[in-house]
Amino acid sequence: MIKAGIVGGTGYTGVELLRLLVNHPQVEIKVITSRSNAGTPVSAMFPNLRGHIDLTFSEPSPENYRDCDLVFFATPNATAMHQVDELLASGIRVIDLAADFRLKDLAVWEHWYGTEHVSPASVERAVYGLPEMNREQIRQAQLVANPGCYVTAVTLGLLPLLHHRLINPSSIVADGKSGVSGAGRNGNIAYNISEASESVKAYAVAGHRHYPEIRQNLRQVDANADLVFVPHLMPMIRGIHATLYTDVIADIGNVQTLVEDYYRDEPFVDVLPAGSQPETRSVRGSNHCRIAVQPLPDAGRLVVMSVIDNLTKGAAGQAVQNMNLMMGLDETAGLHLTGLMP
Amino acid sequence: MIKAGIVGGTGYTGVELLRLLVNHPQVEIKVITSRSNAGTPVSAMFPNLRGHIDLTFSEPSPENYRDCDLVFFATPNATAMHQVDELLASGIRVIDLAADFRLKDLAVWEHWYGTEHVSPASVERAVYGLPEMNREQIRQAQLVANPGCYVTAVTLGLLPLLHHRLINPSSIVADGKSGVSGAGRNGNIAYNISEASESVKAYAVAGHRHYPEIRQNLRQVDANADLVFVPHLMPMIRGIHATLYTDVIADIGNVQTLVEDYYRDEPFVDVLPAGSQPETRSVRGSNHCRIAVQPLPDAGRLVVMSVIDNLTKGAAGQAVQNMNLMMGLDETAGLHLTGLMP
Amino acid sequence: MIKAGIVGGTGYTGVELLRLLVNHPQVEIKVITSRSNAGTPVSAMFPNLRGHIDLTFSEPSPENYRDCDLVFFATPNATAMHQVDELLASGIRVIDLAADFRLKDLAVWEHWYGTEHVSPASVERAVYGLPEMNREQIRQAQLVANPGCYVTAVTLGLLPLLHHRLINPSSIVADGKSGVSGAGRNGNIAYNISEASESVKAYAVAGHRHYPEIRQNLRQVDANADLVFVPHLMPMIRGIHATLYTDVIADIGNVQTLVEDYYRDEPFVDVLPAGSQPETRSVRGSNHCRIAVQPLPDAGRLVVMSVIDNLTKGAAGQAVQNMNLMMGLDETAGLHLTGLMP
Amino acid sequence: MIKAGIVGGTGYTGVELLRLLVNHPQVEIKVITSRSNAGTPVSAMFPNLRGHIDLTFSEPSPENYRDCDLVFFATPNATAMHQVDELLASGIRVIDLAADFRLKDLAVWEHWYGTEHVSPASVERAVYGLPEMNREQIRQAQLVANPGCYVTAVTLGLLPLLHHRLINPSSIVADGKSGVSGAGRNGNIAYNISEASESVKAYAVAGHRHYPEIRQNLRQVDANADLVFVPHLMPMIRGIHATLYTDVIADIGNVQTLVEDYYRDEPFVDVLPAGSQPETRSVRGSNHCRIAVQPLPDAGRLVVMSVIDNLTKGAAGQAVQNMNLMMGLDETAGLHLTGLMP
Repeated sequence: MIKAGIVGGTGYTGVELLRLLVNHPQVEIKVITSRSNAGTPVSAMFPNLRGHIDLTFSEPSPENYRDCDLVFFATPNATAMHQVDELLASGIRVIDLAADFRLKDLAVWEHWYGTEHVSPASVERAVYGLPEMNREQIRQAQLVANPGCYVTAVTLGLLPLLHHRLINPSSIVADGKSGVSGAGRNGNIAYNISEASESVKAYAVAGHRHYPEIRQNLRQVDANADLVFVPHLMPMIRGIHATLYTDVIADIGNVQTLVEDYYRDEPFVDVLPAGSQPETRSVRGSNHCRIAVQPLPDAGRLVVMSVIDNLTKGAAGQAVQNMNLMMGLDETAGLHLTGLMP
Repeated sequence: MIKAGIVGGTGYTGVELLRLLVNHPQVEIKVITSRSNAGTPVSAMFPNLRGHIDLTFSEPSPENYRDCDLVFFATPNATAMHQVDELLASGIRVIDLAADFRLKDLAVWEHWYGTEHVSPASVERAVYGLPEMNREQIRQAQLVANPGCYVTAVTLGLLPLLHHRLINPSSIVADGKSGVSGAGRNGNIAYNISEASESVKAYAVAGHRHYPEIRQNLRQVDANADLVFVPHLMPMIRGIHATLYTDVIADIGNVQTLVEDYYRDEPFVDVLPAGSQPETRSVRGSNHCRIAVQPLPDAGRLVVMSVIDNLTKGAAGQAVQNMNLMMGLDETAGLHLTGLMP
Repeated sequence: MIKAGIVGGTGYTGVELLRLLVNHPQVEIKVITSRSNAGTPVSAMFPNLRGHIDLTFSEPSPENYRDCDLVFFATPNATAMHQVDELLASGIRVIDLAADFRLKDLAVWEHWYGTEHVSPASVERAVYGLPEMNREQIRQAQLVANPGCYVTAVTLGLLPLLHHRLINPSSIVADGKSGVSGAGRNGNIAYNISEASESVKAYAVAGHRHYPEIRQNLRQVDANADLVFVPHLMPMIRGIHATLYTDVIADIGNVQTLVEDYYRDEPFVDVLPAGSQPETRSVRGSNHCRIAVQPLPDAGRLVVMSVIDNLTKGAAGQAVQNMNLMMGLDETAGLHLTGLMP
Repeated sequence: MIKAGIVGGTGYTGVELLRLLVNHPQVEIKVITSRSNAGTPVSAMFPNLRGHIDLTFSEPSPENYRDCDLVFFATPNATAMHQVDELLASGIRVIDLAADFRLKDLAVWEHWYGTEHVSPASVERAVYGLPEMNREQIRQAQLVANPGCYVTAVTLGLLPLLHHRLINPSSIVADGKSGVSGAGRNGNIAYNISEASESVKAYAVAGHRHYPEIRQNLRQVDANADLVFVPHLMPMIRGIHATLYTDVIADIGNVQTLVEDYYRDEPFVDVLPAGSQPETRSVRGSNHCRIAVQPLPDAGRLVVMSVIDNLTKGAAGQAVQNMNLMMGLDETAGLHLTGLMP
């Protein structure tokens, strides 16, 4: 059994990680920490876990992770970077679900996250945890930077098109639509049901932190890649829908087949038949990304729709997938999750 | 034109009051105060009011209300009681949308609101602002205590039955169901859409502040009246549905007619035809209470269903109705509101 | 591996059954039928099942079930009664998720379901599939009548109180609150999101089919049991919350312990600590029933709150639990489901 | 008083029209027809209108409109074209809320609506009812084609930019997001709350009927205008959010001022301050369109966000605005509607 620890497990990525790990056949959760909730039973905070976990939140001190093979950080941004060196030095593998190690360019990171990075060496060492791009490096990694939620949906939607040079790499428009759980478990009035339900709005239109991360991914495939990315808040809990508008620059007569072939061996990317439109609910609680491509020949465009559950493939599920790879387990262990529908 | 002031207009009862008053044909809003938002244009906080109001929140100091004929307190509980004496002394009429003057028994009030009452004289002077019970007194009142939202729905559902001695007055079960806006505009995580949508729960089962207020109302009709009241949080924004279970103690063969007759002249109570079930959405944004009665002869019971919009007939709409009465206007002025459906 | 068949798997109980069975470690789904969708791949109708199931809907003819050990009927009421005799005669075990075999009194059944029963012998033979009441009989059963959703929530909430003679058995008020998926997968305009969201209403107030089923259950514990039951439609997809109002007739000082002890060995009934209120979301997609009890000593009442997922413990999950018992498997096999929260 | 008739008032645009007209100070509703509901009181179908309207649905025969000054068609597409000639011949003005007279190019209309047009002369005669484009012609019109909902939001967002030649007219991407009420009051299972809530999806990606209508509008300003338009279904009842992505081709340093100035005298277009993001809820039930512009200088793009209520400014409210213009009333009469928030 893999011995896992979780730092900061009181947010939505934390409880989702717990939901997945309590049923994972090869993982034992040894410790879960929370400074503000130390001493509280986990199931008192998350009653859905009653009967599934007996742990109590403990103080986030390093010795508490001593017995762990791997530690997940489900902490706010700019937290893991303060603690990761010590853990790695002890031979403990680390997956950070926040953004600390995602951007290789430190100046870009510091611009978007508004603080100095305290562990540049870890950034260099970290492997970006999108298995569909970096599976082999993840297997060898000591430190994995788990991708952002929008980033996962947008990147997976565009990878095959950029790989096959079908689209103008600098013309991309990514319209992102996310359920409110993506904003985390917090008391911001803007996320009160009376404010956030029955309404739609854009946010961070002038610039969102996931933009540089998406661009970094796309540029690994095409150095000229760039995009406009506008996120929107949807009146729902879970789910991301990315609508990707691209200018076609090649014959795309067989684009459906090219995309299907690109992802044929991927356990968690599902390309829908031509003419389909994926619904976010089809991946609610599952680790799948569902993708559909729609050519618009008259307009010389190609529209891609890509959906994930922001908390699963967009966060905790992908973290478990990365853990499986890092620990030599079956990549899909603990992730045979069927979307909850209806 | 009536000159009105609003104290503490940044919550949901405040913005609802603004929505109603900006279109009221005989009211001019002179001042609206908020300590924490002084200097902010009202429409910057509530963009639905852009183009409807030019005011800026000002400091809540007494001189700001000097020109007002009437001041609404849309403040938290235990706020108005500190300020109302001075206003009343200046001849300004007051309607408190909070609970400060609702309970005549000060000991009961202090038990449920957890603080000492600083203005017992005002409590004595205040008229309880349920026009269907106290219309004539409201017309003469200097100070009106606007009823609680659950209280309005439950009381209106039971009045005719108690009046006609049809039910056992001490056997009542009131199952209350409220949209989340009833909890106010605040950042409690429990009301985050990710927590409060797609779920139902009871709360304050051991005792809710609206219980003594309902009981006080019912006992004005029957001194033996008592009830069990359990409120529930509904995954929606607006609306209260009260389901009232009573034991029949008389011939209720004509109960439908009795209830219809009881409310025949009431502009804002609408008794549905026999066999109907009211939907909260039918009163969304309107000042109506819709009621249906369902005898269950085999069980010797009578079930009443009563719906209101908690922010309108349950708060701001009823306050405007009270203002109309106090100021000698047509009781329905500014309240020709059709429920927003769908 | 148990070979299972599903008759009529295109509704919500059908797709929920599929969600559970595709991940059940000891079950193989051999056949799923639908007259109107014969020839359609299951995953074309339910995209959440893509990659989890390869079956195609087939015609509902008896020979299609020939290889099955057990067949689930996820059909409308009054369907299974026409087909069950032939299956049972072939030695195939049957679980009916509809109401055909739930009521032992045929006259009552025919009154509430509006048609003649064509297989009285099967009704006699059927075991009512609430494991918390009939576990041993279910183990031996050839035919199991899977309980109604409201019925499960209400019965489990009341069993310990009736068993210990703590409450007046004929004084019960059951206020039921259900998500809309309980109404099935159909095109009734009343369930259009524009009609059913952001609103609450009662329905079937004059009488609901689950009333006689609840009463039948309660009378197995106390022959005098009776209740008033009013169901309400909640603006959400999944979940039932039953609020149960009872009159206390005994010393209930230790009721919390009595209820906890009553369910101590039950794998799927979870009694919350005193002072708790269960949320339906805590059981979303899980097979648990969560219960809390709240004495109201001043009123001489006891309020019980009981929540389930209407599609899981209220339908397909309980059916799998029954299958496990009938087939000699671990009762919890395939049901280690953690509520999806948020 | 203007005497108005409504043909086919049982859908969502019909009930919204009723909501607005019952409170319009200068309109009397003389007749409302519905073939399938003739004889039913309007308020029996729409209980929010109880107490506001006494009419009963009547048969849709021409003589029923004889006394009307103006008739609204709230019928399905391809209905009004069969009846409009007779009404116009009688001197009755007509506003069609469906699509029959929106597209000037009959071949395009017949392609998208899949049927032959039976009244080409009416198409020629009809004025396209977007007051912000055609105010003066509407004042003189006998027949007005009320615009589509998406069309209104997209067109109003783009008009100032095309007028000032700020953007590449053929590069536009319009990502449309609509509440489900836009699909009408119907029993399609896809709009059941269990299917349509808690999920987001695109639809009609290969081509939507509003595309040619938007293009026709834009080409009145710039003959080269073209766009990609993808609509999405939002899990909510009311509201459209259009996110408009454009390529900048001129100095847009003063774009905020240009857009504000463009709409300075428009009563129902509200340009938000720079840096804002409009929420659909701010226009819930109101006739306003709220617009914000966000330059993205690094990307050479300009993003426009435009929100309306699809049933109000996107349908019935705009129809009333058009009626006011046609009948010589104040353009805003009956439309002093404040968005319902929360």
